[in-house]
Amino acid sequence: MNPERQDSQTHLAMEENIANQSARLLVPILADTIFTQSLYKKYHWHVEGKDFYQYHLLFDKHAIEQIPLVDLIAERIRTLGSKAPGMPADVIGNKTLEEPPDPGYDPKAMAKNLCIIHQRFMRNLRVAIDKTNDLGDAGTNDMLVSDVLRLHELQLWFVRSSLAE
Amino acid sequence: MNPERQDSQTHLAMEENIANQSARLLVPILADTIFTQSLYKKYHWHVEGKDFYQYHLLFDKHAIEQIPLVDLIAERIRTLGSKAPGMPADVIGNKTLEEPPDPGYDPKAMAKNLCIIHQRFMRNLRVAIDKTNDLGDAGTNDMLVSDVLRLHELQLWFVRSSLAE
Amino acid sequence: MNPERQDSQTHLAMEENIANQSARLLVPILADTIFTQSLYKKYHWHVEGKDFYQYHLLFDKHAIEQIPLVDLIAERIRTLGSKAPGMPADVIGNKTLEEPPDPGYDPKAMAKNLCIIHQRFMRNLRVAIDKTNDLGDAGTNDMLVSDVLRLHELQLWFVRSSLAE
Amino acid sequence: MNPERQDSQTHLAMEENIANQSARLLVPILADTIFTQSLYKKYHWHVEGKDFYQYHLLFDKHAIEQIPLVDLIAERIRTLGSKAPGMPADVIGNKTLEEPPDPGYDPKAMAKNLCIIHQRFMRNLRVAIDKTNDLGDAGTNDMLVSDVLRLHELQLWFVRSSLAE
Amino acid sequence: MNPERQDSQTHLAMEENIANQSARLLVPILADTIFTQSLYKKYHWHVEGKDFYQYHLLFDKHAIEQIPLVDLIAERIRTLGSKAPGMPADVIGNKTLEEPPDPGYDPKAMAKNLCIIHQRFMRNLRVAIDKTNDLGDAGTNDMLVSDVLRLHELQLWFVRSSLAE
Amino acid sequence: MNPERQDSQTHLAMEENIANQSARLLVPILADTIFTQSLYKKYHWHVEGKDFYQYHLLFDKHAIEQIPLVDLIAERIRTLGSKAPGMPADVIGNKTLEEPPDPGYDPKAMAKNLCIIHQRFMRNLRVAIDKTNDLGDAGTNDMLVSDVLRLHELQLWFVRSSLAE
Amino acid sequence: MNPERQDSQTHLAMEENIANQSARLLVPILADTIFTQSLYKKYHWHVEGKDFYQYHLLFDKHAIEQIPLVDLIAERIRTLGSKAPGMPADVIGNKTLEEPPDPGYDPKAMAKNLCIIHQRFMRNLRVAIDKTNDLGDAGTNDMLVSDVLRLHELQLWFVRSSLAE
Amino acid sequence: MNPERQDSQTHLAMEENIANQSARLLVPILADTIFTQSLYKKYHWHVEGKDFYQYHLLFDKHAIEQIPLVDLIAERIRTLGSKAPGMPADVIGNKTLEEPPDPGYDPKAMAKNLCIIHQRFMRNLRVAIDKTNDLGDAGTNDMLVSDVLRLHELQLWFVRSSLAE
Amino acid sequence: MNPERQDSQTHLAMEENIANQSARLLVPILADTIFTQSLYKKYHWHVEGKDFYQYHLLFDKHAIEQIPLVDLIAERIRTLGSKAPGMPADVIGNKTLEEPPDPGYDPKAMAKNLCIIHQRFMRNLRVAIDKTNDLGDAGTNDMLVSDVLRLHELQLWFVRSSLAE
Amino acid sequence: MNPERQDSQTHLAMEENIANQSARLLVPILADTIFTQSLYKKYHWHVEGKDFYQYHLLFDKHAIEQIPLVDLIAERIRTLGSKAPGMPADVIGNKTLEEPPDPGYDPKAMAKNLCIIHQRFMRNLRVAIDKTNDLGDAGTNDMLVSDVLRLHELQLWFVRSSLAE
Amino acid sequence: MNPERQDSQTHLAMEENIANQSARLLVPILADTIFTQSLYKKYHWHVEGKDFYQYHLLFDKHAIEQIPLVDLIAERIRTLGSKAPGMPADVIGNKTLEEPPDPGYDPKAMAKNLCIIHQRFMRNLRVAIDKTNDLGDAGTNDMLVSDVLRLHELQLWFVRSSLAE
Amino acid sequence: MNPERQDSQTHLAMEENIANQSARLLVPILADTIFTQSLYKKYHWHVEGKDFYQYHLLFDKHAIEQIPLVDLIAERIRTLGSKAPGMPADVIGNKTLEEPPDPGYDPKAMAKNLCIIHQRFMRNLRVAIDKTNDLGDAGTNDMLVSDVLRLHELQLWFVRSSLAE
Repeated sequence: MNPERQDSQTHLAMEENIANQSARLLVPILADTIFTQSLYKKYHWHVEGKDFYQYHLLFDKHAIEQIPLVDLIAERIRTLGSKAPGMPADVIGNKTLEEPPDPGYDPKAMAKNLCIIHQRFMRNLRVAIDKTNDLGDAGTNDMLVSDVLRLHELQLWFVRSSLAE
Repeated sequence: MNPERQDSQTHLAMEENIANQSARLLVPILADTIFTQSLYKKYHWHVEGKDFYQYHLLFDKHAIEQIPLVDLIAERIRTLGSKAPGMPADVIGNKTLEEPPDPGYDPKAMAKNLCIIHQRFMRNLRVAIDKTNDLGDAGTNDMLVSDVLRLHELQLWFVRSSLAE
Repeated sequence: MNPERQDSQTHLAMEENIANQSARLLVPILADTIFTQSLYKKYHWHVEGKDFYQYHLLFDKHAIEQIPLVDLIAERIRTLGSKAPGMPADVIGNKTLEEPPDPGYDPKAMAKNLCIIHQRFMRNLRVAIDKTNDLGDAGTNDMLVSDVLRLHELQLWFVRSSLAE
Repeated sequence: MNPERQDSQTHLAMEENIANQSARLLVPILADTIFTQSLYKKYHWHVEGKDFYQYHLLFDKHAIEQIPLVDLIAERIRTLGSKAPGMPADVIGNKTLEEPPDPGYDPKAMAKNLCIIHQRFMRNLRVAIDKTNDLGDAGTNDMLVSDVLRLHELQLWFVRSSLAE
Repeated sequence: MNPERQDSQTHLAMEENIANQSARLLVPILADTIFTQSLYKKYHWHVEGKDFYQYHLLFDKHAIEQIPLVDLIAERIRTLGSKAPGMPADVIGNKTLEEPPDPGYDPKAMAKNLCIIHQRFMRNLRVAIDKTNDLGDAGTNDMLVSDVLRLHELQLWFVRSSLAE
Repeated sequence: MNPERQDSQTHLAMEENIANQSARLLVPILADTIFTQSLYKKYHWHVEGKDFYQYHLLFDKHAIEQIPLVDLIAERIRTLGSKAPGMPADVIGNKTLEEPPDPGYDPKAMAKNLCIIHQRFMRNLRVAIDKTNDLGDAGTNDMLVSDVLRLHELQLWFVRSSLAE
Repeated sequence: MNPERQDSQTHLAMEENIANQSARLLVPILADTIFTQSLYKKYHWHVEGKDFYQYHLLFDKHAIEQIPLVDLIAERIRTLGSKAPGMPADVIGNKTLEEPPDPGYDPKAMAKNLCIIHQRFMRNLRVAIDKTNDLGDAGTNDMLVSDVLRLHELQLWFVRSSLAE
Repeated sequence: MNPERQDSQTHLAMEENIANQSARLLVPILADTIFTQSLYKKYHWHVEGKDFYQYHLLFDKHAIEQIPLVDLIAERIRTLGSKAPGMPADVIGNKTLEEPPDPGYDPKAMAKNLCIIHQRFMRNLRVAIDKTNDLGDAGTNDMLVSDVLRLHELQLWFVRSSLAE
Repeated sequence: MNPERQDSQTHLAMEENIANQSARLLVPILADTIFTQSLYKKYHWHVEGKDFYQYHLLFDKHAIEQIPLVDLIAERIRTLGSKAPGMPADVIGNKTLEEPPDPGYDPKAMAKNLCIIHQRFMRNLRVAIDKTNDLGDAGTNDMLVSDVLRLHELQLWFVRSSLAE
Repeated sequence: MNPERQDSQTHLAMEENIANQSARLLVPILADTIFTQSLYKKYHWHVEGKDFYQYHLLFDKHAIEQIPLVDLIAERIRTLGSKAPGMPADVIGNKTLEEPPDPGYDPKAMAKNLCIIHQRFMRNLRVAIDKTNDLGDAGTNDMLVSDVLRLHELQLWFVRSSLAE
Repeated sequence: MNPERQDSQTHLAMEENIANQSARLLVPILADTIFTQSLYKKYHWHVEGKDFYQYHLLFDKHAIEQIPLVDLIAERIRTLGSKAPGMPADVIGNKTLEEPPDPGYDPKAMAKNLCIIHQRFMRNLRVAIDKTNDLGDAGTNDMLVSDVLRLHELQLWFVRSSLAE
Repeated sequence: MNPERQDSQTHLAMEENIANQSARLLVPILADTIFTQSLYKKYHWHVEGKDFYQYHLLFDKHAIEQIPLVDLIAERIRTLGSKAPGMPADVIGNKTLEEPPDPGYDPKAMAKNLCIIHQRFMRNLRVAIDKTNDLGDAGTNDMLVSDVLRLHELQLWFVRSSLAE
């Protein structure tokens, strides 16, 4: 008899069904995070023109800041007892974000696209934050606000600032 | 006339009686944290068998991660204006956790025990989190969620993962 | 047509009017943070007497811990789409704190003053925390609790501890 | 008149058509590298059982060692004057590797899968190494041998070693 | 009888009246340094447009380089036996610099303003350097040249370089 | 047949019965070390008054220096082939030290208590050092002198120095 | 009798005449490397205009990356048994590169010049790589590919990227 | 006349004949240390099976900890005025340890072998410790106890722990 | 059925028989590397005379640089599927180098010996490099050139430079 | 013929007789610096009473800051072509400072003594600064002002601050 | 209208014509610094004989210490509003130093040459120091004394010390 | 009534009269350590000739290694309850070593002198080690063997090695 099975309804001292709901909320957030991270890297590699160097640095800084979120969200899903789908095919299957129109090599067009991505990401994120609050899953809620939301808000400010005329 | 006495009802800009209630909630959490940290060290020292080295490392990693929680919780109690009882006799007097059955030198039995400890700890912790929320003591609440709960959830996942068949 | 303008009502995926209200709450907090940081530096420079060295160190530690809060709050206001007034004249115009009576060079009188400053700061801060909670601005709320409130609570404990007879 | 266009046939002091051929060789290698890195992370997150901790560490070590290869290969493609497709959909479209049968949570089954992945990766890689040699693209050739091949050979040894009975 | 009082006319082995004159020269320099540092931070927070990121970095670099000057000058004043006024109200009362016309969010307008600030600062500074030389206060003179003047000269070059057409 | 059992009388190349005697000597030393470490932390948290900060730092420095001794002694007991009892209940059961009279928040009373603790600790320690010498257990003897005794002697000097009138 | 003279034909276990040919190939590469490094520093110092800061950083990054190549190539020539001419007059006498037309302070004109320099450098370099391959001097060949060629290819990509319209 | 020769009987302020005896004691200990270090590396390279990774790490940790002992013992022998034989042929000629039966790739068989090696090493070591004590060569004695014996005792505990059933 | 056996002919995606030939080439190189490393250490310990200190440092620098080659070559042999013989007896059995005539304590005689060792080592190495090239084992070839050959060439230059009259 | 002798009147491009005068000025400053450094260490070791810890730290900080001055001044004297007398007997023979009355263990009495020492040191120092200025020895003058004077002024402020009532 | 042009006569708050004179003084100092740095590197590469290693280290240490002077002087010239000529041809055109007679590989002859170079450099430097003093350009003067002169004086002492018989 | 006085006979849990005897043994050792450290620095400053650099480094390495012994011995004396005399006049009064004949600038003569100093130091030290052993003061004994004796033995080997012909 396996002790962890005995306690299975209450592992994390939380209703198993709450844990499952939280995990389901996190799956598309994981996919969208990998998507966002990849998009920053893509723009980091392709930006051109006389502002190449500053945008090359900025997009890499943001890509690097997104990397720990991938591990954080995936390991949270695992902690909640579910599987964390992070293969490229899983991202395609679970993401809610669409790749914006091709910006070519233009940093400004890239920045506009990234604004839209951050805004759409946050719209879904705010819904998930509210739901984890309603579910009473304080740990997931804290991660989504402290680690995920605050980073997106700050990165959006950076890319928006570079768009102002 | 001592200024800090003048303001004593509102130091931390909080009702003294709220601060006292929060502190009382934290006392058993402090005792259980020292207990949990000691148990990880005990298992770190006593584990044997061919998986000795990986469990020796894992249990020490968790023990070391618990150490800053002891200072954090004790200093929070002091910040709230109460005494922080952390001597071995205080731990005996205030803890809610019981030492699980002797696992001998067996890592798997140790991991089972640690799962139970984390789950019991979190059951009490979730109650305290709700109470500090009701009391409106945002600082204590934030510490319990961000620092204490999230570490326990993650450590539980690690020890549970090593138990699965 | 500028894409960030299109989305202006929902940048951060939040009602523009909520963002504005949050920003207005943060302006005096920014001013009071700069004020608090300056006061710690002032006392760090002027403390005298045989306890000079320990207070010189303590006041500098607190001043240095306040510095990142200035950037954090100012950049949050900018993230919310408003201007962050941090020039000395802005501090005079927006702060809610008053400089306490001249402590001369006496560390104890300085510590008493600092207790009062922290308490007043926190009284305003708790109101702002509640308001950002009501507004549903989770990012601002998290910053005020995790970064601002918890630092003030801890620093107050330090200066209060040095006052007890 | 743009100087870099003038020299476009010989930028990198190499026939443009050689650069293009090298780039085309690298595109599936980029996709397979992202795929391999994701698979290591997936197994890092999902491994269970009493060997959880040592495999959790090993798979993460390998995933982390693959990360710089992604940037290295993508920036090489860009250096050669082509686009570097690294979005999840690009990986799906360009990869040559298939996800092996589901290992469940079993580290041994995971390690077997990874052996197969490394071997298939290297089969393609050796072809590309020979072709870049024939093309006389010394820079691409050196990167594929020194950075890509030697890492795969070493990682394969690690995962193979853990499979021996 | 207090030994430091006995020697009070010659503490620092310098005429007390020379020490006082040097200190009086430093008071507006302290105020202007805090003002300059605040202005750099303000522009760091508010710069916008496609050059946002490079100016955001440049203005922060300069702000951070100014911070140690504040402590250095204030502690020098204290060493000379006088009070170091560094509160926001003190800055208002002692500074010689005026805030330049509002640059909006435009980095070029900000850089122009900063040129003017550095030039005005240095005009006063050169007078103070000559006076400390005449007074024979070698320590103050060395600090003003080595630490203050050379930093302003270098920062001016940076902001001027970004203005050239 | 288990090789380590074959050699059991001479593992460490030492009579098993000597190893057992050494281990029995170390058990109360382990308990007293945990007790001493806890007492330093307790005083670190509770000290108050205008000397709060210097004693807060000093007591923490000593507590932190005691922490590695706990691991060192416990792992030595394990090396000698015995169990290392370090749970709070074990400390209560094996320690020889008694908690001194309550010092309230007074650093001087705390320092007096700590002097007594160090002296009593060393009295037992010197007996154990002599016995391990008689037993010819050079490794245990070296640890008790180089690591345990020399730290206690030095810490006692620090706390005694702060007591002199 | 000097042992190194005895073996002089085969020191490095290589025909002396091969070593000499390799060294002769490296002399102009050394001169051109010092020339390239100096040109980057020159542009680092003279760039102006609103993109001053990003190009100031980029040109310095590249200059700093070229510095270790100077030592590497010079010490390789010495290893091969020849003299390494690196004084300014030696650079004038041995370099194959010409300083491009004066770019004034314009970063774009500078970047165009640097593209041309990198391309010309690589044209010579590829010839030398082939010759060292034919000579069978594997050590020199590996240095030219791994250290020299790959850096030039990458730096060219950076400066070219900043030129695209 | 050479001053160090004048004092030759008393260099180190010790009878030359004592120094020689100590050195002779150390020669086989040096050989056995190189042997032990090599054996750990050998097992580090050859271990296989599902516990490969934890033993690969453990054996390397121990090999790396043995490396400084080689230098320490060899330089001690030189300090005592004798030659330190450390070439592979010297190890063969002076070692007292024999390579245990071939463990194949099996970590458990390797660990058993290492237990035996540590025990045999320590048996010789304890004799040498006693002799250096009798000789009154405090420096050699201290090195053998503090550096050599304590490391072997600790490493033996680690490998023994992994053997327990 | 063991998957790694299935693929055994093509593990590393290379003919098993090529892997075996490469491994056989590496075995004497491993032995000679351990021999060279030991010789440097021997001379590091025994050098005397007024140039003692500079040669003591130089020989240690070279010994320390050889250490990672031992692991690199041994793990390469293991990667190729063979056993890596690194015990002192294995070195005796597989090395091709002979210990040069006894240099006494004379640094110059030591340096002469080391020149000869490096030259002989490289003669064998160049043969192995050519063979791995013919075999098409790019990974082994790259390691031998980039890591082994280039270090020997550089170290030979250092010791040769110290011999010139 | 020795080239440095040829130029001996102008080595450092300075009249030999000026160099000699500067060196003679520095000899008592070297002695007094060693004396001051020793006095700080003495007080660091002997301070007692409840302020023990803060003064123990402060006096050590100052002693440690004085140490590099000893090397700096001694090497300057050597640079000027004279001998640098730094043995204890040299300090006795060349110092101008007298040890102040015995402060017992009292930190305040120690601080008073140190004020007097700093003041006397600076009186001599200011004379030397003026003389090196008259001599036109810019290097010595800069060292005395930037390194020696500014440190003494700052340390005096610290010890004086702790004396104020 | 360009603001920096408006102030052009007084940028740096200094007469433009003074700035120009200072810049003209610095141009040959820049050329001579690059020349000196190159000469140290040349000798670092070519020194031979049994003292090879100590001189190889010493010459490299001095070369590395000269490198930051190049940037410092060049950026000072730019700060003063002039162009900083640092290409090899510029060095040839502006330097005042001549390469001394060929020292072959002899460290002593190299050191003699370097003494002469330092002495000649300093003769020019002292003139420039006096002129910048007369011009009242305190920033340039401070750089020449604190950074340039003091380094040359110290390096001269080192190379002279190695020449004494 | 002062508790530390109550226990005064047994503070350190040692007879006060034993502590006093140990302290008296340490006083000349402290003086001789400061003397030895000063002599190394003196030789570090004055060595000349073509071996200047290697001896300059060696003597400084030894001087720097002696520095922590000064603090260690002085604080041990204080721990034993006595005064630690470390002023230059105290060194003159308590040292047993005499300054050897003037070596001029000759490194070999310096090394000979240092051999004699180390040997004389150790002769006294061995007596003190035996006495602390007889007294049963294990802490002092351990410090003298582990920290003082072993360093002197090693340093003597270094300076002796450089003397051998």
